[in-house]
Amino acid sequence: MPYFDVASAAPLHPVARQALLAALDEGWADPARLYREGRRARLLLDAARETAAEAVGCRPDELVFTPSGTRAVHAGIAGALAGRRRVGGHVVVSAVEHSSVLHAAEAHTRTGGEVTEVGVSRTGAVERGAFAAALRGDTALAALQSANHEVGTVQPVAEVAEACRAAGVPLLVDAAQSLLWGPVAGDWSLLAASAHKWGGPAGVGLLVVRKGTRFAPPGPADERENGRSPGFENLPAIVAAAASLRAARADAVARAGELRALTERLRERVPLLVPRTEVVGEPERRLPHLLTFSCLYVDGESVLSALDRAGFSVSSGSSCTSSALTPSHVLRAMGVLSEGNVRVSLPLDVRAEDVDRFLEVLPGVVAGVREQLGAPMDEEPPAVPSPAPLVVDTLGKRCPIPVIELAKVFPRVPVGTTVTVLSDDEAAALDIPAWCEMRGQKYVGREGTAYRVRKTGPGA
Amino acid sequence: MPYFDVASAAPLHPVARQALLAALDEGWADPARLYREGRRARLLLDAARETAAEAVGCRPDELVFTPSGTRAVHAGIAGALAGRRRVGGHVVVSAVEHSSVLHAAEAHTRTGGEVTEVGVSRTGAVERGAFAAALRGDTALAALQSANHEVGTVQPVAEVAEACRAAGVPLLVDAAQSLLWGPVAGDWSLLAASAHKWGGPAGVGLLVVRKGTRFAPPGPADERENGRSPGFENLPAIVAAAASLRAARADAVARAGELRALTERLRERVPLLVPRTEVVGEPERRLPHLLTFSCLYVDGESVLSALDRAGFSVSSGSSCTSSALTPSHVLRAMGVLSEGNVRVSLPLDVRAEDVDRFLEVLPGVVAGVREQLGAPMDEEPPAVPSPAPLVVDTLGKRCPIPVIELAKVFPRVPVGTTVTVLSDDEAAALDIPAWCEMRGQKYVGREGTAYRVRKTGPGA
Repeated sequence: MPYFDVASAAPLHPVARQALLAALDEGWADPARLYREGRRARLLLDAARETAAEAVGCRPDELVFTPSGTRAVHAGIAGALAGRRRVGGHVVVSAVEHSSVLHAAEAHTRTGGEVTEVGVSRTGAVERGAFAAALRGDTALAALQSANHEVGTVQPVAEVAEACRAAGVPLLVDAAQSLLWGPVAGDWSLLAASAHKWGGPAGVGLLVVRKGTRFAPPGPADERENGRSPGFENLPAIVAAAASLRAARADAVARAGELRALTERLRERVPLLVPRTEVVGEPERRLPHLLTFSCLYVDGESVLSALDRAGFSVSSGSSCTSSALTPSHVLRAMGVLSEGNVRVSLPLDVRAEDVDRFLEVLPGVVAGVREQLGAPMDEEPPAVPSPAPLVVDTLGKRCPIPVIELAKVFPRVPVGTTVTVLSDDEAAALDIPAWCEMRGQKYVGREGTAYRVRKTGPGA
Repeated sequence: MPYFDVASAAPLHPVARQALLAALDEGWADPARLYREGRRARLLLDAARETAAEAVGCRPDELVFTPSGTRAVHAGIAGALAGRRRVGGHVVVSAVEHSSVLHAAEAHTRTGGEVTEVGVSRTGAVERGAFAAALRGDTALAALQSANHEVGTVQPVAEVAEACRAAGVPLLVDAAQSLLWGPVAGDWSLLAASAHKWGGPAGVGLLVVRKGTRFAPPGPADERENGRSPGFENLPAIVAAAASLRAARADAVARAGELRALTERLRERVPLLVPRTEVVGEPERRLPHLLTFSCLYVDGESVLSALDRAGFSVSSGSSCTSSALTPSHVLRAMGVLSEGNVRVSLPLDVRAEDVDRFLEVLPGVVAGVREQLGAPMDEEPPAVPSPAPLVVDTLGKRCPIPVIELAKVFPRVPVGTTVTVLSDDEAAALDIPAWCEMRGQKYVGREGTAYRVRKTGPGA
């Protein structure tokens, strides 16, 4: 059964499994103790730190293990902010950071801090100039991901790090999605990552704080992990995480070309096989194994369920798949279609035939959901426009219904007509403009729950 | 090789190992995802929560998994304090809590909070009345361990919980040392525990927040674990933790009598076999598997190393075994001898012959260290007191030297003489009075680095 969601969590790498098993026997004791079991645990911990530091490209004493990537991000941001409290309370982040970064920024604003979110291009890329322009004299910290977790866009970390250095601002890099593929280049100050993204076990994150970076963990601390990650070390998992980073990266480097070819195949074929579909994210500067697209007139949840029944595990940034019923903040920041969103992230051992089978199955899956929802796939407008309402009331209806109802009405109205869609669904703010762009119509604007669209051409 | 330090970390229980292996294959995916791997992970997580809740005696929705016992304590204290911010910022803890509780209390005082430490008896027991008397109108939270981690004393949690309920103050119970042995009785509000103390894997703690307890996690949160423990769940370890709690508790209940008999044997025999030794902690209300004693005229580190060479792994609260070179805060709060401190905590599968061998080895180990340090073990004072200095200058010398130097001088001075020991070692504050009590001499008092002791009898 092909699992295409390694960007959420990768299955355990065989080396991780092997190392974990060995460390369960050798590394269960407290590495702070001086007796033989403790010394053995300490040796394992030290060796794991060295291995991980080598893979990151830092000194072992700059790296601590945390209970997860999220905790690494939280600890990194809190420590850097407290360490630079005198400089100020301003933080710069990109608008497409992982939620762990945005949650930490949010928590910072709750205690009086200020956060600037730097926007991205339609492909999800941060622009160095825009990021640099957001840095201020009172900026305590900046944060930028190495690559985006939802669309795979690789960010210009080295350039942004340079701008941050010039401004005297430490840069924290969330490297969760890219550390598997190689070290993060550039003169960054802090780095966070997560083992279960590279085939390591759950329960292990990395936090790197470069020498010379002011850092003061604000919460309760103990003597473990250099005072930066309290609590008994999750040692067997740490050993497995470090061993598998090295092994999985070797695999990743060897397989990168093949994976890029497979995602390239998806990038080319999906829009041909599935009409009304937009591939989102950078075409070139992107992760090799990840591809995201959105399909008009379907809800992500139905597509995911149907793909699941067909044996494929993928994820989605559509609002219907989020417990808050809002589209992914990444797609929102990019200003792209969020309905029918599908993220495919391939495992290192993916078989080309499984990707081909996915391409075989996908068109039927999407068509099935569209049929069920009564989506208007007919390209031809009626010869004589029939009377149609100029206000489409979809209040209380959720994505993709507002867009479907709009699309149903459109062929029936004459060119030049302005149609108003009433919608209180958050996804509409993204999906109605995106529909206009995809269908060559004019998005006039929005007032509250009223979206206005002018018919400028025949296609709908 | 007998490992007698399960109070630090217990070796993995066979059931934990088995469950962990199974869950590595079945439970690596993100339990928040809707595809089959995610649903499987969610089922495992739900089942683990139910198993753990049953063992604790709470509802599953009251229990979340954290990355460690320390993190459970930190999150529990921070959440309870933030939830009751309007009530006030006063916290009551016992003076013998685990360092994770004291560190959280310390962090609280750094942000303007106030902490009252309730003292304990010479056996390490909290007294209900003293604890109740510390509760105030502005007390936001109280914390009491179920059993002490260094001396095994069981605390009157149910009685203290009753007093807290009466005062409207939530009580957090650190149950790390006792959850293996059974649920914590009483009407407590929050509970924290740690899996690697019961033979579960590292990387898992429990935090229970009873319904009706005000709780507001102050830091960045996500949707995992009810918003109380951010970051990807350490699922295979969680599954192993829950399974092993049930299994290990059954073992513990079955073995409790035998373990109590073995620690009772230690309690009786150690003072007989090793002169100048004090067993510390409660004789009756105590954990079945744990015994702590202190030996005059030796340093804990040398004893631990010698025992390690003889094949025994134990721990110590002596100052020389702490990186801060201060005696354990538990021994300090109890006011007992800290030098030559040894904690023995027996694993469930301990063999009686290993305990006997420990009793065989210990006297020689202690005697060897004493000999090396030139400790005065001769009971007989010289017939005619020889001239001796009345000021013993041990400034710059560490435990156990100040006490050894005092003991060397004492037999040579006449009854009624007051000897002054100069010491800047923190352990002296504990060990000189303890020496006086053990040797039947009069501790007069201390002024700065000067300790005065009066000779009231022949024995030294």
